[in-house]
Amino acid sequence: MPFARIAILGLGLIGSSLARAIRAKMPATALAGFDSDPAVRARASALGLVDDLAETAVEAVRGCDLVMLAVPLGAFAALGSKIAPALQPGAILSDVGSSKQAVIDQLAPLLGPDVRLIPAHPVAGTEKSGPDAGFATLFEGRWAILTPPEGADPEAVASVSRFWTALGSKVEVMDARHHDLVLAVTSHLPHLIAYSIVGTASDLEDVTKAEVIKYSAGGFRDFTRIASSDPTMWRDVFLMNREAVLEILARFSEDLAALQRAIRWGDGDALYRRFEASRAIRKAIIEAGQDTPAPDFGRQH
Amino acid sequence: MPFARIAILGLGLIGSSLARAIRAKMPATALAGFDSDPAVRARASALGLVDDLAETAVEAVRGCDLVMLAVPLGAFAALGSKIAPALQPGAILSDVGSSKQAVIDQLAPLLGPDVRLIPAHPVAGTEKSGPDAGFATLFEGRWAILTPPEGADPEAVASVSRFWTALGSKVEVMDARHHDLVLAVTSHLPHLIAYSIVGTASDLEDVTKAEVIKYSAGGFRDFTRIASSDPTMWRDVFLMNREAVLEILARFSEDLAALQRAIRWGDGDALYRRFEASRAIRKAIIEAGQDTPAPDFGRQH
Repeated sequence: MPFARIAILGLGLIGSSLARAIRAKMPATALAGFDSDPAVRARASALGLVDDLAETAVEAVRGCDLVMLAVPLGAFAALGSKIAPALQPGAILSDVGSSKQAVIDQLAPLLGPDVRLIPAHPVAGTEKSGPDAGFATLFEGRWAILTPPEGADPEAVASVSRFWTALGSKVEVMDARHHDLVLAVTSHLPHLIAYSIVGTASDLEDVTKAEVIKYSAGGFRDFTRIASSDPTMWRDVFLMNREAVLEILARFSEDLAALQRAIRWGDGDALYRRFEASRAIRKAIIEAGQDTPAPDFGRQH
Repeated sequence: MPFARIAILGLGLIGSSLARAIRAKMPATALAGFDSDPAVRARASALGLVDDLAETAVEAVRGCDLVMLAVPLGAFAALGSKIAPALQPGAILSDVGSSKQAVIDQLAPLLGPDVRLIPAHPVAGTEKSGPDAGFATLFEGRWAILTPPEGADPEAVASVSRFWTALGSKVEVMDARHHDLVLAVTSHLPHLIAYSIVGTASDLEDVTKAEVIKYSAGGFRDFTRIASSDPTMWRDVFLMNREAVLEILARFSEDLAALQRAIRWGDGDALYRRFEASRAIRKAIIEAGQDTPAPDFGRQH
């Protein structure tokens, strides 16, 4: 049985995509929404994203059987405290945050016994931000990872699973800590590295920014896509998944040092072996439908 | 005055794209070609890439007024020694290598006074390899960087410049050492980092390769594109541009360590400032026509 009334708190890229996808796939569901930024609320209103655009988060969640948090992770604790007393008995509280143990640690203590916490993470997004950037098909063919806390109601897990399946996602259920480690590798470290290299390239004395921009097609531009993602969201991800990110980062630094040493000592065989192995991963990602096989991501030539 | 007869040595992604582009844009020019790999020669023949597919490099360059080396940088010295005596007086020897001072150092001593060395680097390519991967429009809107050695014949520089302009490229003339530093930032370091992170992700005990592939849409997949580029070519780039790569790599490692420290100490302001600055670079790259503004590179949803 689909949800009768859903509240989306936070109407940026993900929240507004959720609203559009719900509209498209669950026409019988009533949609409430809220964003703390008046400018975002004005755009949400102009775009007609939800049925009931609330002036407060508490007002938005009243009478909803599903409440989705789509705000930066750093805002979860304060928002959770505000809305917890207003959640109706039996309601499911879920979210789209990129780090999951921190969500459980922050929200679980705030909730009464009648509210069911089922954290979720749709592994989908673009480098754009804000309510105008969202679109209804964002989640299609992407994975949604659910990380129910120990002892979570299986029925609630099944409901959230059906919800994401209805939006076109594939669903996986996973322990929150394992999620955080997997995503540290597949998402958080790539973003950190991309931000870092863009910073390095911007700060050189002997190479101008204009040169970096002109010759970015040599590889650099690929990194700038994810390095243009929302800075508030990503700041919070790193603060909220600190241990896993630091662990993976340490391994990356070791591996990079090994390549550095191979370059310094002219060890071409070591470089070749490492580079050759990378091709298989790319092929597997394309076969799994997680990227386009078109050369150059299908960029126009 | 366009070239009457051009030889392309090496018929992989770049060499075969050159052949196709010359066919399309300079129909009056005769094209000779050679590749040391018999399988590549067979494909070149089947594809009809050149007018005269030679059995040796020496045979290919005879009677040509432009000879383009499109082989991995590690093969330049041996190939240069072979063809140098066969180059006709007045011929221009050029190339498409990604590191330029090494090209001058290796080729200049081999050439007689009548041959003009004008190294070039088209900043274009895809992650694919081989003669089937090439296409005529690869160089359109991309930069071709010429790095003539000191005292090079200005007329020869102008000829090579017109050549790339005719293929749709924008041309820049630059000192070879400066080129190597600029490309170390915009191309070589990004490739090294991409190869490294793909290696890190493949070698974990607690996260399986299947999980890395499944959840790659979180950011990791962007890195795998350039990490699937030709391993021989890239091995040679790092060996031939060692000093510049090591210098830029050291700066990158410092910058990454600063972000690591900010995460460890929970310094959200430092993270935010760094992340916020990255957006401007992305915007400038798109405005310069060096990437697509479509979200997610225009990947299909």
